[in-house]
Order: sequence, then C-alpha cells, then structure tokens
Amino acid sequence: KAISNKKATTKHEHPSLVLTKAGVEKIKSQLGTVPLFDKTLANVKAEVDAEILNGIEVPIPKDFSGGYTHERHKRNFLMMQKAGVLYQILSDETYAKYVKDMLLEYAKIYPTLPVHPQTRSYARGKLFWQCLNDSNWLVYTSQAYDCIYNYLTEKERKHLEKDLFRPFAKFISVDNPQFYNRVHNHSTWGNVAVGMIALVMDDDKLLETALHGLKKDNIDPNAKDNDGGFIKKKGQKVGFLANLEEPFSPDGYYTEGPYYQRYAMYPFLVFAEALQNVKPELKIFEYKNGVLLKSINTLLNLTDADGNFFPLNDGQKGMSYYSRELVSAVDIGYYFGGNKTDLLSIAKKQDEVLLDDTGLAVAIGIRNGLETPFIKKSLDLSDGKNGDEGGVAILRVNGSKDELSLVMKYSAQGLSHGHYDKLSFSLYEGGNEVIQDYGMARFVNIQQKGGGNYLKENTTWAKQTIAHNTINQDETSHFGGDFETGSMHHSEKYIFDVSNSNLQIISAKETNAYPGTQIHRTMAFVKDDSFENPYLLDIIKINAEKEHQYDLPYYYLGQLMSANFEYTKSETLKPLGEKNGYQHLWKEAEGKTGASNAKISWFNNERFYTLTSVVSNEDNLIFTRIGANDPNFNLRNDPGFIIRKPQTKDSYFVSLIESHGHYDPVSEIATNAFSNLKKLSIVYSADAYIAISIENENNTKSMFLFSLNDNSKTSKHQIKIEDKAYEWVGVYQLINNY
Amino acid sequence: KAISNKKATTKHEHPSLVLTKAGVEKIKSQLGTVPLFDKTLANVKAEVDAEILNGIEVPIPKDFSGGYTHERHKRNFLMMQKAGVLYQILSDETYAKYVKDMLLEYAKIYPTLPVHPQTRSYARGKLFWQCLNDSNWLVYTSQAYDCIYNYLTEKERKHLEKDLFRPFAKFISVDNPQFYNRVHNHSTWGNVAVGMIALVMDDDKLLETALHGLKKDNIDPNAKDNDGGFIKKKGQKVGFLANLEEPFSPDGYYTEGPYYQRYAMYPFLVFAEALQNVKPELKIFEYKNGVLLKSINTLLNLTDADGNFFPLNDGQKGMSYYSRELVSAVDIGYYFGGNKTDLLSIAKKQDEVLLDDTGLAVAIGIRNGLETPFIKKSLDLSDGKNGDEGGVAILRVNGSKDELSLVMKYSAQGLSHGHYDKLSFSLYEGGNEVIQDYGMARFVNIQQKGGGNYLKENTTWAKQTIAHNTINQDETSHFGGDFETGSMHHSEKYIFDVSNSNLQIISAKETNAYPGTQIHRTMAFVKDDSFENPYLLDIIKINAEKEHQYDLPYYYLGQLMSANFEYTKSETLKPLGEKNGYQHLWKEAEGKTGASNAKISWFNNERFYTLTSVVSNEDNLIFTRIGANDPNFNLRNDPGFIIRKPQTKDSYFVSLIESHGHYDPVSEIATNAFSNLKKLSIVYSADAYIAISIENENNTKSMFLFSLNDNSKTSKHQIKIEDKAYEWVGVYQLINNY
Ligand SMILES: [Ca+2]
Ligand SMILES: [Ca+2]
Ligand SMILES: [Ca+2]
Ligand SMILES: [Mg+2]
Ligand SMILES: [Mg+2]
Ligand SMILES: [Mg+2]
Ligand SMILES: [Mg+2]
Repeated sequence: KAISNKKATTKHEHPSLVLTKAGVEKIKSQLGTVPLFDKTLANVKAEVDAEILNGIEVPIPKDFSGGYTHERHKRNFLMMQKAGVLYQILSDETYAKYVKDMLLEYAKIYPTLPVHPQTRSYARGKLFWQCLNDSNWLVYTSQAYDCIYNYLTEKERKHLEKDLFRPFAKFISVDNPQFYNRVHNHSTWGNVAVGMIALVMDDDKLLETALHGLKKDNIDPNAKDNDGGFIKKKGQKVGFLANLEEPFSPDGYYTEGPYYQRYAMYPFLVFAEALQNVKPELKIFEYKNGVLLKSINTLLNLTDADGNFFPLNDGQKGMSYYSRELVSAVDIGYYFGGNKTDLLSIAKKQDEVLLDDTGLAVAIGIRNGLETPFIKKSLDLSDGKNGDEGGVAILRVNGSKDELSLVMKYSAQGLSHGHYDKLSFSLYEGGNEVIQDYGMARFVNIQQKGGGNYLKENTTWAKQTIAHNTINQDETSHFGGDFETGSMHHSEKYIFDVSNSNLQIISAKETNAYPGTQIHRTMAFVKDDSFENPYLLDIIKINAEKEHQYDLPYYYLGQLMSANFEYTKSETLKPLGEKNGYQHLWKEAEGKTGASNAKISWFNNERFYTLTSVVSNEDNLIFTRIGANDPNFNLRNDPGFIIRKPQTKDSYFVSLIESHGHYDPVSEIATNAFSNLKKLSIVYSADAYIAISIENENNTKSMFLFSLNDNSKTSKHQIKIEDKAYEWVGVYQLINNY
Repeated sequence: KAISNKKATTKHEHPSLVLTKAGVEKIKSQLGTVPLFDKTLANVKAEVDAEILNGIEVPIPKDFSGGYTHERHKRNFLMMQKAGVLYQILSDETYAKYVKDMLLEYAKIYPTLPVHPQTRSYARGKLFWQCLNDSNWLVYTSQAYDCIYNYLTEKERKHLEKDLFRPFAKFISVDNPQFYNRVHNHSTWGNVAVGMIALVMDDDKLLETALHGLKKDNIDPNAKDNDGGFIKKKGQKVGFLANLEEPFSPDGYYTEGPYYQRYAMYPFLVFAEALQNVKPELKIFEYKNGVLLKSINTLLNLTDADGNFFPLNDGQKGMSYYSRELVSAVDIGYYFGGNKTDLLSIAKKQDEVLLDDTGLAVAIGIRNGLETPFIKKSLDLSDGKNGDEGGVAILRVNGSKDELSLVMKYSAQGLSHGHYDKLSFSLYEGGNEVIQDYGMARFVNIQQKGGGNYLKENTTWAKQTIAHNTINQDETSHFGGDFETGSMHHSEKYIFDVSNSNLQIISAKETNAYPGTQIHRTMAFVKDDSFENPYLLDIIKINAEKEHQYDLPYYYLGQLMSANFEYTKSETLKPLGEKNGYQHLWKEAEGKTGASNAKISWFNNERFYTLTSVVSNEDNLIFTRIGANDPNFNLRNDPGFIIRKPQTKDSYFVSLIESHGHYDPVSEIATNAFSNLKKLSIVYSADAYIAISIENENNTKSMFLFSLNDNSKTSKHQIKIEDKAYEWVGVYQLINNY
C-alpha cells in the first residue's frame, strides 16, 4: 500500500532532518561523558577546522572523479554537512558562517553554470560529470542548510533557495527525468536529494515529487544508461517509494548487490530518518514490513570475516562495513530498530558514530558495555520485489582455523550492475578468498584508470560468464550476454537447508541462461571427522537438448602446488578464445588424465587447498591466467582452472574442495599439506537421482544421495547401487561408513 | 689469534651447557613472578605433555623434508630438548624418562642404520637425507642429554655414548669430511653438533675436532656440493673457529646473507653459550672483536618494518626475527652482550624466551619495564672476513606514512647461496616491498614442491642477474653465471654517507661482472619538500670497451596504473629470451617514447608509486611477467619493467622513484595519485662528473652534482653548465632552486 503525504503538517522547526532540536539538547548535555561520541566529534572538528583554515574553494567544474574540481566539490559537501553539525552541537558561529559563505559562493556560480563539460554520462550534472554526484551534493548540503537555517536571515534563505536549491532540485529532476524517474540507485539519490531539500524548505509539493517521482517524463522505453541498463520499463512506478519497493526483496536483499546496496543505504536511511523526524505519520520504517531495517542486517551478513562485502555483480573489492554509509546504517538501525545490541559490536569496530541522536545512542550503548557479538548466519536471501526471483545463499561453517563461507548466487539479473553469473559461487576462509569472484573491472575514483569510471573490461571480462565460477556453454555467456534477456529471468531455488549443522546445503536450477539446457547446481558443506575441515561438495547436473561444450572454471587464488595429472605448459601464451570474455584468458597449460579424478592443490595465506573433480579422459584440464587482450593493464593477472567437457548432451561436474593444513614461513613447518580425499566418484546417476561416494585417505567412506527432481521434504526415495538398496526421506541423505 | 682449548678443565657438573646448575636454581626461585618466562614455560609444557601423550615414534628413516619420517625425527629432537629443560626446571621425572626412552629407541636403531635412502645430497645423513639435519638433531639432543645426564645411570650413559652419540658424531665428521671440514653453514652445524656432545661427554679431544676440524680429510679441491658451492679451498682453515672467522665480516654480516645468517645463528650462539659456560677461559664472545654479539644487531637491522629479513641471495620470504633462532639470538645477545635494553623490545614482540638463564634475564627485564625501542639505522655492512670485500648498504628515511628502506648489494658472491646480483637493490615502504628482490625459488619443507628443496628454477631464474634490479649486459648474467669466477670478486664501495639526513647516499663500482665494462651505481634518498616523500635517485654510469646491449629491470610490485608512453601489448606471449633467466620472462608489452622521460605508475597496498627514467627514443621499454618455461608452476607471476638500451659503449641509466598518495577502497578517495616529478634530466655528463636536474610539477628545480672518479671528501670540483659555473667540495652536492 502506498503512503500518502497529503496529510497536513505544521511548519517545522530547525534542525529537524537528522539533528533535531531535542536531540541537540541531549547531545549537549552529554558532551564529555560518551567516549566514542566525543572522539568522533573531536575528529570531525579537527577535520573541519583544517578545512576552514584552508579557505573556501568553489571552482568551475571541469574534471571527472579523481580530478581536482570533482574532489573539491565532493569535499565541500562533506565539509558543509559536518560544519553544520558542529555549529549545532558546539554553538560556534564560525561553523555556521563557513557553511553560509560556501553556500553563497555556490549561489553565485549556479545560475549561470552550464551542464558539466565531460560528456560521458547519460545524465550530466552541473557541479559533477553526472547528476548522480550533483544529487550526492544536495543530500549532504540539505542537512547543512537545515543546521544553519535559523542562523541565516530570511533574505539569505530566499536568495539561496531561489538561486541555488530550487534550480538545483529542478535540474536533477525535471530537467533530467532519464536520471530521476527510474528504479535505480541513481534515482534513489536523486529522489532523496529533492526530498531532503523539500523537507528543509517545508515544500510538500516538492516532497511529493521525491516520494512518487515526476508525473511526466517522456522517457523512451528503449533508452539505456551508460552501463547498458534500461532507463525505465513501461508502467514502471518511480520515486523514492518505488525505489524502496522494487529493488529490495522482502529479505532486505538489494538486487544490484551488496556494493550498491551499501551505496544506496545512505540516501535510503538518511531520508528515512529525516522523514521519521519530520513526517512521523508516514511510518517509513514500517514500510514493506520494515524492509529498510531488515536490509541493514542483510548487508552486514553479506560480508566476509573482515567485514568486506562479497563483490557480487559490480562491486569493488575492499569495500566494507567500515564505510561511512555503514556507520550511518548501523547507527540508524540501532536507534530506529529497537536497540539491537549486536549492532553495537559492529559500531565499536567502526570506531566512529554519526553526530546525531542515533550516534549518541550507539555511543552511550557502547559506553555502557551493552554490545553483544554480531553472529553471521547461514542465510538464504530472496531476490526480487516479492522475493520470488531467485536469491543469494550464504552457507557458513566453522573450520579448524576460521569460518568457511560459501556465497552461491541464483538471483535475478541485478539491473544494470548485474553479471551473467547464474549459479556462480565464491568461497572464503575467514577474511580470505579461496575461490574468488572477480568483482568489477574498475578503480573507483582513480583517475589514471579511465577517469575512475567503469573500464571497457568490465563489460568484456568482469560481467561475462567465463569470469565466474559457473557453467559456460559453447564459450558464450548466459543469455548470450544480452541484458534485456537476462533481465527477464532468474534461477529457481531447489532446496536451501541449514537445519543440520553437519550438512548445510543449497541447490538451484537455471533453465533460461542457455535455452534448451537445464543446469542444476547443488553445493553443500559437509562436516566429516576424517577431514580436517568441513569440505565443500559441488554437484552440477546438466540436461541439454543438444550437444554442447561445457566449461567450469574455478578461480582459485594462490600458488599452484601440485596436480595429479600430466599437463603441458604452453611455450607461447595465446588467448583461450576470441570473445565473451575468453579473449581475456591466457591459456597457460592443458592436461588430461586417465584416472577418474583430477586433483589440484594450491597454497595461499599459509594454507593449502585442494580441488578434486570427477573427470573422464575426454575432459580437458586447462590452466588459465587473466590478462590477455588487456591493452592498458586494467585486469588482475589471477589464475584459474577450467574443467572442459567436450561436445556432450547431459553431463555431470562433481567436485570437492578441501581446506587443509598450514605452512608458516617462520617455523618452515608444513602440516597436513596433502589432500585427505582418496577418491571421489559418481556411484549412481539417473534422471531422478545422483549418488556420490567420498572416500578418505584413511579409507573411511561416505555416500551422498540426492533427489534431483523431487524437492519435497517428506518424499521417500530408494535406489539400488551394486545390488544394495539405499532408502531415504527428503531431498538428500549422507551415509557415513557405507 | 687462535683459541687454544688445551688448558685443563675439571670434570664439570650437569647441566652446564645451556642450562646451568646455578641458573636452574635461580629459575626455580623466580617461577610465577616473571610473566613472559612463565608463559613460555606453560606453552612448552603443554606442547611436550601432548607429545608424551602421543607416545614415542622413532621410525626408520625414509622421507625427504616435509615427509613423515623427516618431520617426526625433527620433532623428536625439538621435543627432547624441551623435555630436558622441563625436567630441570620442574624436577618432574616424567620428562627425564621421556628423553631417556626416546634416546634408547635411537640407540637401538642407530648401530645398524644404513645411510639415508634418499640419494640427492652430497653428504647423506642417517636419520635425515642430509648430514645437515643429522647435525641439527645432535645439537638439540646434546642439550637434552646434558639435562638428564645425572638422571641416567652410568651404564645407561655408557650405552648411549657407545651406541649412539660417539658413532653419530663420527658419522657426521670423520665419515663425511666433505660436509664437516668446510667453511659453510652446513659445517657450522656439524662442528657445533660434535662440539656440544663433546662438552656433555667432557671429551676434550672431540672438542678439539669441533673447534679446529679434522686434521685429515682428503677432500678433492674441485669437489662441489649440491648447490654448486666448492667444498674446500686449498689451505682453508676449518672447524668452528674458522667458520666464525671467515664468513662473518667485522661488521657482523654473514656472507651467505640474512636468511642463512639466521639459520647459522642458532648453532653459533648456542655453542658459544655452552663454551662460555663450560670453558669460559676461551672467551668465545670476545673472539674477532666480539663479532658474534655484533652479528645479532646486524641481523636485526637486515629486516623490514615487519621484522622480515631482506631476501638477499637464497632467502625465503616471510622468514623473520620471530623465528626460534632469533629468539635464541636476542636472549643470548642480551645476557652475554651487556643487557642492551633495545633488545628487550624485540623480545617483547617475539613474546617468548629461552627457558634458560638468558631467557630468564630477558623476561625479568621486560617485567621490569626496561625495554627501549629498537631503532633501525642506515648502515653500511662490510662483507668478507676482513671487511674488504664490498658490502650491503641499507638506507632508511622517514616518509609521510612509513619508513622507506633501500637495500643495496655490492658484496662478494656469498658462497654457494649467492646470486649474480652485483649492485642490485630492493626498496621497501614499511613492511611492504616496492621494488622486490625475488628471493629464492624454493618452498622450504613443502613436499609437493621438489621435496621442499631447491627447485631447478632457483638456478635458472632466481640466481640469474635478470632476476634482479641491476644491469644485464648482452642478456648474460654477471661472471657468465659462473660460480668460481664470481667467488673471486666483489664490488667496491665508492661512497657511503648518511651524515646528512636530507641526502643519504650509497655508491659502488663493479668492474669484474662483465670484463671490460665498469658499472657504477649511485643511489640516494633525497628529502625535498616539494615531494610528499623522500625520493630515491638511481644513477648508473656504464663505461665499456665494446658495444653491448644493457637491460635494467625494475621488479615493481602491484598493478600498473599508467605509463606516459605508447606501448603495444603482445597478442601472444613469448619468452623474452632463451637463457640466463630470460627464458622465464614473458614479454607482455613493449614501447618507446620520443619524450626524454619514460614514466610508469603503479598501485600497491593502497599507495601509488612512480618510476621516472631518462630515456632516448632508441631505448626499448619492456613490460614483463615472470613465469615462462616454468613447467611446474614453481615461479611467482610477478611483473617487471625493463629499460633496454641497444648496442652502446658508455651509457647512463638515471631514474627517480617516488612513493606518493593514498587510496582507500573504503572511502574510495584517491589523494596525490600522480607523480610530482615534471622532468628528470642529465644536464652534464663526462668522465669525471654527472649532473642531474630534478624538476617538480610546481616548477621548483634542484640539481644533483656528482664526482665519478674522485671520492675524496675534501676535493674541490667545478663544472660549467650552460655557461654557469657550479662548484662544490666532496663527492656530491645537491643544489635546491638552481
Ligand atoms: Ca578480506
Ligand atoms: Ca613484510
Ligand atoms: Ca635475492
Ligand atoms: Mg552505475
Ligand atoms: Mg561477478
Ligand atoms: Mg645449502
Ligand atoms: Mg637474488
């Protein structure tokens, strides 16, 4: 149900968006008694004081991100927001004057400012090369304006609103509907920018535009943005509420993936906070079953042990819950979400808080020692507005040293930032990648690399299927790499079950990526005492109408230690293929084996890993390295191992990944350096069932039985293997010592 | 002057080698009051208790390092030594019995034990594949025997000495003179093994063999060991004292390099400690001006900010002052070296101590808060017995974030572990490598990789000149890669001056690596306020009798960000050459520039780096990656950049390396991402002088003037550049704002 903002509200006081008058009083009364708040305040004060000393610079816009004018304007809005807060908390007019003077500078240049000279964006801004960054500016600057609202004379306010804020809001909305009237993180920023300034100016009509978008836009339904994403589907609802409604699943998973979820969290939450403060009758935090608060918990779970987000879709590695957006999210989540004490342990690691009511509450909670550990769980996160468009599963299990985490993606396309990676996965041990997801081909804000924007290789490599740990048919990407087709489909969950901590499982099917072919992948963490750590079982069954070639890459990270088969290193390196990402892989070596298992071991971060895979002597075993056809050294030269099954209709890929042992370059002692798996085999395979035998070096054996077409928890199954009958109930069964 | 051990000593008590009777009494009286000692004791006790529970295993030897029997025997001697100590300190006979039982097991098998079945070593052991490891066993086990000496009956002692210790000592000495009678870390272990057991058994004749070697050996003067090192030069003095005399320079630099210095430190120091305790009249710590104690300080200075040793010559990266050998060294150095309190800060980081008089002293010092910071210095370490065979210089300077460290090697060959790397260097920022030394091609004790031994690629790649950041002539290694020739020569220091903290300089000449060619390299850290960090100036002048091709590689670590010249990436990768290490480099790209400076920037560990080099349009600019002709994935696939000057007689390589800026993937803010160097140029060059102009982006200019053939500190120099006269006194001069 839609939220109406028609209800009349009385003229409100200032500040009221993020800081509130009552909140400021409380903060002032607590100063000096709440260590983390005091520390953050001192840091912010030192930072702003240095900027004030440096003087105000409002240059004529010219550069891309990474360049001087871009970085200066970005710094300006961050500083104005902080100075506004300092003025409120410290009652020192120096800060108010700094904001006022800077705003007046902006008001001087804005009326005659042309569109930004850099032409790359589908929606060029004025201060920045894209409206997106202009919107960032307004989201922050609105807060500064709110803080010094009462410090300004009415005449000053009128001047600023007429020459700066209103035309600014108009430019990013009415003048750029292709930016503003979408469901996309760009539009979220645009909507929130307009909404925040509307709240300060108490302009309900403008607020309506923020919440529900522009009534008219004349957007061509075929138009696309720079990333190849559609601008707007026909009949698409727009505005802030649509952006909240559509990309979040009921589980709080944001369809673009965690990196952009993080980016979008700030506008979502800061505007929600402002709406809650100014328009509590909207009950924004209860919208869609409280999805905003739920999404904070979801996002915190989409991280490795270091707090780094899993780089699904377009995501830059290294982004983490230490980002300023997550500081906001955690503080706002704590304050408006019932003071969940596990959030305090994250806030404590972040070691800073928002300088507002929410940050004060968090800092007081920490001072009072209320924090409890934030325990990440095995989770199945649905994708899609209604939660019925596939999802992302995370399995977590404790190992002998660190937690092992599997991220398995069977989601929808993920808008313009999505990758063609159906049923792909990545594997972590603690904070380390074992089998990596490449992430994106971009160095955000590093100007040397394409102005800090998306690189060509993001499209030609990072988005392609072969860049992922999943099935490639005939050296083509899923959906032919076509965004429109990909956007129409999603994978289907078959089973997610983590009720037994000794066998956690996710299984999903994909039938649209390659028409006429069904890919069914099942991954399970199995705790087996005869292995040092829980192992990861990976079973793929392919049913195809025609014969195809199948490639399954594993992008292991580290140094290859050994392989149990003969291979030949290439004397000259050539690309593995010509297109669809294959042109970026050097073929380093190729081998085959007559034994039924191909096994490679590698070493990384003082640990050993082994991948064992059931293969036939027809299969090609290919070692690759990323970096071919990369004219500007934009790619990382990481290794990969591809199991290639030549022309075949139905096919199985069955593998087992072990983390084992340790090597310390100081003691120079290697322990458990070899795989403990003696033999992996498919002991039964048919349309309806598969059975896998797992034999340990110490001769213990277990068997994994799986029903491929009946995912009922109560169905009874029976198969015969070598004249012995095996019976079980439900989708799967593990038999030890069979 | 030689030390005589002829002086009669009275029958001594037990224990007396490492633990002493008086020391044990003191330790017992302090138990529970010295936290670090108590903690170490508890850890050791827990470790040994677990082993005792596991039971004694003395398998028939079979495996290489990394394999079961090797690791088991290694663990056995470590455990016996610890159990002996526990018996003394805790007076619990469980530990004495454990040692006794294990020794009896060894005495059972030893008399009939054949030489080890693995045939790779030039000196095969019995328990292990090489006498070296057998000697390790005896060094540790002698201590255990000393500790339980009085617990054993005389009959038991006689049995052990007759069936185990005496034949063991004979085997590694008389039966293997090619191992025992050398100057080499192997022989040091051998000599110390014999010396330690001689001290326990109070056998002065055997001790004499330890101190001065075997009288006869019949070693072929052309014989070599597995590493290609000579066994013994004609007339070579041998034994422990010769091994102390020869490989250590008067500055305490060990000619094989820090990795092997670390390895040798344990036998050197533990035997010195034992000699000091049993034969104080030898004054072993005063030998050669106290070189043993000096060498501890030297070794601690041969580390990066993390405590990792610079991987000069054969050295495995990651080895550090956290190793058990350095725990010994620091504790023994503190106790016998006048209680230097800066050693306590290293011991505190190590977080463990020896369980003897020395460790107790250290732990008491730490408990009493006596530690002072260990401040690493810029140092010039001479090489060679007399300190006149070149050396290794370390320059250290504080940067905006971390200390920058230059390691410049102009030493002698370094025995069989030496590399052909005259005038090579490596550069560090804090604990991170900026320009790396490859180290060795070996995965010590990791069995998958050639049994954990040296890999073929250590010879074909890691030792070769092209694997180092130094001049290669005509694609051949220094001395033609010939060990005998290399062993006859060393580079010559020209100047080392760190008296001015704004300009620290090392300069050296090499005239033998390529006969007929003189290479003169000068490197300086210069603090210049117009740069964020001190920059590294690198000036190479080559004088050659004939025309040659010159290659200068820089093995930068990180991702290439940009280059200021056009280059073409190779569509297929081929090796850069066919031999001398070139066969292991993939040629990734090649370029040229008409501008007078070639500039590349790269990114690593959140920082930017730029190399700017004076080049002509004749020079080839080559990007490489290690890994060609590497059939078993033994090499790391690291990048390199080579400046190649085609056929030329005299030549200059002038470069400047900057560390600048920062990028944080969480804030996504890049600062100072571009080089601050506008232009680097040679403004004067002649036989006697060179002058380099350094122009900053903000147009400040400085000039570096250098006298190439007169290194007197008092000589006056004058040159004219563009009609302007420049005068200075001494070897070099930096003129700011010229
Ligand atoms: Ca991580
Ligand atoms: Ca390091
Ligand atoms: Ca080296
Ligand atoms: Mg985008
Ligand atoms: Mg991806
Ligand atoms: Mg050796
Ligand atoms: Mg080397």
